[in-house]
Amino acid sequence: MAEKIGFLGLGIMGRGMARNLIKAGFDVTVWNRTPARTDEFVAAGARAGESPAAVARACDIVFVCVSDTPDVEAVLFGEQGAAAGLSAGKLVVDHSTISPQATRAFAEKLSALGVRFLDAPVSGGSEGAAKGTLSIMIGGAAEDIERARPYLQAMGKTITHVGEQGAGQMVKLVNQILVVGNMLAAAEALLFAQAGGLDLSKALSAVAGGAAGSWMLSNRGPQVIARDWRPGFTIDLQQKDLRLALRAGDEMGVPLVATSLIYNLYRTLQQQGLGSEGNHALVKALEHLAGFEIKGA
Amino acid sequence: MAEKIGFLGLGIMGRGMARNLIKAGFDVTVWNRTPARTDEFVAAGARAGESPAAVARACDIVFVCVSDTPDVEAVLFGEQGAAAGLSAGKLVVDHSTISPQATRAFAEKLSALGVRFLDAPVSGGSEGAAKGTLSIMIGGAAEDIERARPYLQAMGKTITHVGEQGAGQMVKLVNQILVVGNMLAAAEALLFAQAGGLDLSKALSAVAGGAAGSWMLSNRGPQVIARDWRPGFTIDLQQKDLRLALRAGDEMGVPLVATSLIYNLYRTLQQQGLGSEGNHALVKALEHLAGFEIKGA
Amino acid sequence: MAEKIGFLGLGIMGRGMARNLIKAGFDVTVWNRTPARTDEFVAAGARAGESPAAVARACDIVFVCVSDTPDVEAVLFGEQGAAAGLSAGKLVVDHSTISPQATRAFAEKLSALGVRFLDAPVSGGSEGAAKGTLSIMIGGAAEDIERARPYLQAMGKTITHVGEQGAGQMVKLVNQILVVGNMLAAAEALLFAQAGGLDLSKALSAVAGGAAGSWMLSNRGPQVIARDWRPGFTIDLQQKDLRLALRAGDEMGVPLVATSLIYNLYRTLQQQGLGSEGNHALVKALEHLAGFEIKGA
Amino acid sequence: MAEKIGFLGLGIMGRGMARNLIKAGFDVTVWNRTPARTDEFVAAGARAGESPAAVARACDIVFVCVSDTPDVEAVLFGEQGAAAGLSAGKLVVDHSTISPQATRAFAEKLSALGVRFLDAPVSGGSEGAAKGTLSIMIGGAAEDIERARPYLQAMGKTITHVGEQGAGQMVKLVNQILVVGNMLAAAEALLFAQAGGLDLSKALSAVAGGAAGSWMLSNRGPQVIARDWRPGFTIDLQQKDLRLALRAGDEMGVPLVATSLIYNLYRTLQQQGLGSEGNHALVKALEHLAGFEIKGA
Repeated sequence: MAEKIGFLGLGIMGRGMARNLIKAGFDVTVWNRTPARTDEFVAAGARAGESPAAVARACDIVFVCVSDTPDVEAVLFGEQGAAAGLSAGKLVVDHSTISPQATRAFAEKLSALGVRFLDAPVSGGSEGAAKGTLSIMIGGAAEDIERARPYLQAMGKTITHVGEQGAGQMVKLVNQILVVGNMLAAAEALLFAQAGGLDLSKALSAVAGGAAGSWMLSNRGPQVIARDWRPGFTIDLQQKDLRLALRAGDEMGVPLVATSLIYNLYRTLQQQGLGSEGNHALVKALEHLAGFEIKGA
Repeated sequence: MAEKIGFLGLGIMGRGMARNLIKAGFDVTVWNRTPARTDEFVAAGARAGESPAAVARACDIVFVCVSDTPDVEAVLFGEQGAAAGLSAGKLVVDHSTISPQATRAFAEKLSALGVRFLDAPVSGGSEGAAKGTLSIMIGGAAEDIERARPYLQAMGKTITHVGEQGAGQMVKLVNQILVVGNMLAAAEALLFAQAGGLDLSKALSAVAGGAAGSWMLSNRGPQVIARDWRPGFTIDLQQKDLRLALRAGDEMGVPLVATSLIYNLYRTLQQQGLGSEGNHALVKALEHLAGFEIKGA
Repeated sequence: MAEKIGFLGLGIMGRGMARNLIKAGFDVTVWNRTPARTDEFVAAGARAGESPAAVARACDIVFVCVSDTPDVEAVLFGEQGAAAGLSAGKLVVDHSTISPQATRAFAEKLSALGVRFLDAPVSGGSEGAAKGTLSIMIGGAAEDIERARPYLQAMGKTITHVGEQGAGQMVKLVNQILVVGNMLAAAEALLFAQAGGLDLSKALSAVAGGAAGSWMLSNRGPQVIARDWRPGFTIDLQQKDLRLALRAGDEMGVPLVATSLIYNLYRTLQQQGLGSEGNHALVKALEHLAGFEIKGA
Repeated sequence: MAEKIGFLGLGIMGRGMARNLIKAGFDVTVWNRTPARTDEFVAAGARAGESPAAVARACDIVFVCVSDTPDVEAVLFGEQGAAAGLSAGKLVVDHSTISPQATRAFAEKLSALGVRFLDAPVSGGSEGAAKGTLSIMIGGAAEDIERARPYLQAMGKTITHVGEQGAGQMVKLVNQILVVGNMLAAAEALLFAQAGGLDLSKALSAVAGGAAGSWMLSNRGPQVIARDWRPGFTIDLQQKDLRLALRAGDEMGVPLVATSLIYNLYRTLQQQGLGSEGNHALVKALEHLAGFEIKGA
């Protein structure tokens, strides 16, 4: 028999995820910082909770999907936070992308209350959230994942248990380091190709299928060539996630030379008002440096 | 009716390519700087030429596969070079990876003799050369590619016409910039994952299928985790190709910040005696910096 | 007539500074987190306060010299912090190197109590602190600097008013960006010189007096050649200050590409247990990368 | 008794140097690729030679000051090159900045003729050449330096014997690595200071005298603040010298991570038509990246 579930945070990602849980027929109670946003969910069959504490009191499992480390902290441990309504045996699943170190601290605080915890950041963007095709990387106990699996399956296509608490966040940051590193390679290659007078689409199709291939090249390369900067994932979010990666790297003492460089480039683009463009607009930083642009197709 | 073809250069790549041409039943004359290496080709049905000039004199189309720009120059225009045996209407196809600028100069010199030219560098490694599954990126005239197509199809699986003379080399360098950039991203991500205490294989499989994915991550990541440094493509060759990319970038005035960094790392590894390891041993440069190693599986 | 002055923080820097104030004959009350350290100051003629609040209550001007932003926050606004003893018209002078943004926030909180504030970070190391030859960069009102001048002159040789509150810290970070950037240049040049088979001391003396010259080259270069890693300024402190610079740069959206790289190198050296060596041991990070060492003289 | 001396190359540097030799009363024969330029020297008391070979035939010591490695090669070993007029016991002193490796090869070729050789690159710019205040770094035998000393003293203020043949060039490259590294630090610091709202001149004067100080900061910093891009040393020449440094570093297998980055930035500025501005215009590359400019005083 399905448990009662709560969902905290109906932003660009949480919205689609909560809808999929409701559509799947689960008993869902939602909460959002801006209360008006809950109306459509109530219309679709959910209940609305007055606060994270109220939702936690009413439910067995509480899913969280907010922006950054302080937001998770506020939703869990702030005034009227979920912790006030949680009791032994309940389970919290955090889908936000936040600090692995803070995640472990949160998990410990909940553990002192007998509350179970999984960190379960997602990738796949708002489209994946809407379609229920997210990749979910989870840190925590296998039994807790089994307990959450029916609900996770309503939201994501790939559910991977990657280690203990905090490991989900750590893997998410590994993911982000790769995404931007591959994008930098694509940007530098496209700029070189432009300077070399190549037909960029032909060049792309000649190399994308082999050892030079990457998801970013195949999916964002054509967008760059078309100068289509609409986001799959915005620079603002990318910059936030890279900051998490750099701070984690800093605490662990691991050098992230390329990621630091890329962070600087994203931060600068953001400062130039491009924060809502897609992360492939990294190309623009190299264009500024080079003094010429990749010509649209 | 098939034309008479020559093949100059029976090194690690040329060997497999020439064999495939012979196996396909073409009339092939081979030449190699070290003559002894031609014996097995003669045994397999080829003729041996005494010099590039002799091969060129005897054949309609001359394929070249040697190491670097000066080698191509020597084979074409040196003493007893192919040019001495070439005449109007004959075709030269260069499979070496060399300077795009030099390529255009060579093409012009041949054009003055009425000789046609294609630059047709390959990717896919010695394995692809042996199996006839190379990717071939070609710069030059469409009609010349049609003329060479039967022979190219015996050597490669993907044959892409990417632009005018020199464009094949330029695309090859684009390919190499991507390969090493994606490898740097993988190296930095793996080092971060190691510091974060993750199970590297799990982390890899959690992210390789999504936006973070790349050929290098999927194919070289597991090798790194197993500390298996056997080459698909050696550091020595990678360093040579990156030097070509940097010199071309330099001549065109395009900034290659990441590629320059990576070149420095490869050059250093080479200096430390690791030149014959695979290009994924780039990881070792970051390990030296970090002061810790990725632990084998 | 001189005012009553307090001094909070008798660490490696504060110690020398407080001693110079006492030696100059001022009426000084000291406090330190580890109380035992005050004994020698009392023996030299100072009073000891029981808490920052007690010192603030007893004095007109309170000098602070602690480690990092949270330490200043604790000493000023924590339990028994100076704020509890400060009243309108008193002056706080902070010699610590901390966040410019936090500095402005602290200044505002004090201003609400009618308390004046100067941020006055120093450079010159423990030797400069002991000898009273520090450089002091000050942000705040000119009249407050005039009021503090007699005491500042007992501690430093160069006293520069650089702007409004926070500007002192900002200039200190500018100073640190320059110090490490010049050190990186020196490190790269020395490594190149070593590889080139040069007599490093001769090379140094040939270039240090001209356009290539820097304080770091002249003062730390010979130490590097002698492999003498004793600190003028430790890697631990350098890393802390660079973190402040990077965070400030991040908040302001200014790219610090070289400083980020250097930060990564210092963080790594620290992780390798070299945190108490001098900041010129940056050379060791490049040596790890290069795979060879600069040979001692 | 003074020897007969020749001077090959009357460009921006050679001109001033040759004038100083004539002014000092020596018996000087000059040659320049563009012959018209010799007129004023003849008017001043020099003889004009018809070719490097003719000058070499007529003189005991031949000084050379041209642009790059191929120019030195042409002047020495080309048609009517100096070598044709040199004989055992004569001395060549090369003031050009060129490849250390090529320098050693040239020295060997001359040695086979019994001709002595010193590499003696200079620093101090056209102003130093005109005033006779150059720094001269010399590789070669001490006795050859003694023989050349009277003439060197007419051209330079500091004459340093740094090692064997090639060492002069190597030290010059060390010099250039330092110059641009210190300039990068200055550029990053000034950009940070600008973003931090500082009065740049005050900030500069607060830090330039201490551990953060460098010749570039003191001399080029104020120019940057005034947006005065007139060259002490042009980007074009700086880029040429850095290319020599990177190629030498490459041959020796020493990583030049910062220098590579800076080279990319200079190459890009050059491409944008700024090659004749001073090397402190490096700041502009960071400004392009940051999206804001340092405001003039």
